[in-house]
Amino acid sequence: MRPETLGVIGLGAIGGSVARQAKRSGGGMRVLGWSPEPAERAAAAQDGALDDAPARAADVARAADFLVLAAPPAANLVQLDALAPHLRPGALVTDVGSVKRAIIARAERLGLGARFAGSHPMAGTHLRGFAAARADLFRGAVVYVTPCTAGPGDGAAREVAHFWAAVLEAHPVILDAGRHDAQLAATSHVPQVVASLLADFLARHAPPGASLGRGALDTTRLAASDPALWTEILLMNRDELLPALRALEESLGTAERAIEMGDAAALTAWLTRAAVWRRRLDGRGDGA
Amino acid sequence: MRPETLGVIGLGAIGGSVARQAKRSGGGMRVLGWSPEPAERAAAAQDGALDDAPARAADVARAADFLVLAAPPAANLVQLDALAPHLRPGALVTDVGSVKRAIIARAERLGLGARFAGSHPMAGTHLRGFAAARADLFRGAVVYVTPCTAGPGDGAAREVAHFWAAVLEAHPVILDAGRHDAQLAATSHVPQVVASLLADFLARHAPPGASLGRGALDTTRLAASDPALWTEILLMNRDELLPALRALEESLGTAERAIEMGDAAALTAWLTRAAVWRRRLDGRGDGA
Repeated sequence: MRPETLGVIGLGAIGGSVARQAKRSGGGMRVLGWSPEPAERAAAAQDGALDDAPARAADVARAADFLVLAAPPAANLVQLDALAPHLRPGALVTDVGSVKRAIIARAERLGLGARFAGSHPMAGTHLRGFAAARADLFRGAVVYVTPCTAGPGDGAAREVAHFWAAVLEAHPVILDAGRHDAQLAATSHVPQVVASLLADFLARHAPPGASLGRGALDTTRLAASDPALWTEILLMNRDELLPALRALEESLGTAERAIEMGDAAALTAWLTRAAVWRRRLDGRGDGA
Repeated sequence: MRPETLGVIGLGAIGGSVARQAKRSGGGMRVLGWSPEPAERAAAAQDGALDDAPARAADVARAADFLVLAAPPAANLVQLDALAPHLRPGALVTDVGSVKRAIIARAERLGLGARFAGSHPMAGTHLRGFAAARADLFRGAVVYVTPCTAGPGDGAAREVAHFWAAVLEAHPVILDAGRHDAQLAATSHVPQVVASLLADFLARHAPPGASLGRGALDTTRLAASDPALWTEILLMNRDELLPALRALEESLGTAERAIEMGDAAALTAWLTRAAVWRRRLDGRGDGA
């Protein structure tokens, strides 16, 4: 759908980018936004990304026929609870958090099954705040859209997917919330834990002033991410994450035993499985 | 020292780069090289990096007053055993492997304590073979030089360090072999294991076709490294590596328990320690 009045709750890099591009996309869409920080509201209004920035989130919800929750994941749950009573009849709601089962369950519990679908854009920036918002942030990016399952959620998901494609020029992909969370546990949440694990180790064990190669820098790059945001993401997806971390622990144990026993064949097999997988991603078969 | 006749055992990217720059550095240095592969010997001779490429390594050892062992780490140990009886009186020997205690111990056992010092250049390429050799590979790079301790090893270490500076334009840093191996376990060998750990996990658990972000790609980049070479390195440094891997396991357990218990404060503390350390490397204090 193409909203007449878009509401954006949360005006950081993601919410700000949604607002900016919505205004830029033409067709006279009215865009309202809210942030708990008055300075962000003022910045977004001054920038022209918003037509209005009311002081209360409920005023945005009351006006919008399409509402995007773009706060951190735990805050989105709280906002959904708070704003549900104020939604316009027939208004559609989505969020942009990176864990989907929790908010889908919340929407269903609030009776919003036919009006809510989750979103997770595979685009972002490590910069924070409205100043980092960019109209083209989502252009060409995959956006997972996860339907509610208790009720006729497919219609809402199709509308939300159309919004991402038509207004934000993204590539929506409709995906079950459970499958989304399992996939993201593996491809995003475990890598975050692994990068932080190595950084935490190096923080305690690297000799001060020891030079680190590009390898150690690359392997820890994700560890610089926002700890508060990642605490929310990891805890919210813990049902998927815990078995994954146990598999990781077992694999580390395999390598450790091979090194302890001096078992070169077992260690080479372990390293080779990893190397074959990684080299394939670079489209090279030889490790060169 | 500036050798009159330099011998290079192993003509891959590292040994080939040593030979190329030695010829290029002028002063009429004679450079002999040997590889177990006749094609590499022929390529290096044809390239002009070598004055001669005899079919037997012993012939290189007999002619050289400075001998560089540039085979993989385990092969360097074998070559040192094999070539020790053929060394010219007073000749100096070094190697370029990334683990130093094992070869230092071997040199001492062979009675080469006053003529051997280990080297570990912090430069390399993921490309392999003589074709990847570059005269400027070591220019400006730190090269750790590790003296023998049983005997007057300091003189040999100073001579080897001078060779790296004068001929290869590198920055030699003299460092005890034990401290070198402990430092490299933390800054290089553990990162390799961690990258392979994540790649091995993703090879088994990432849904086929699931899109991976730059984060997962960066965190696994090292996993593409040569499994046979890394098997040698990890096993050769196992005394330093095993306690490090146990520390890693404990830290993973800490994160896992925090996630399992829903302990946001503990998880944030763990992520923050990693983030603070990592952000400092990029010279930014805010995670942006």
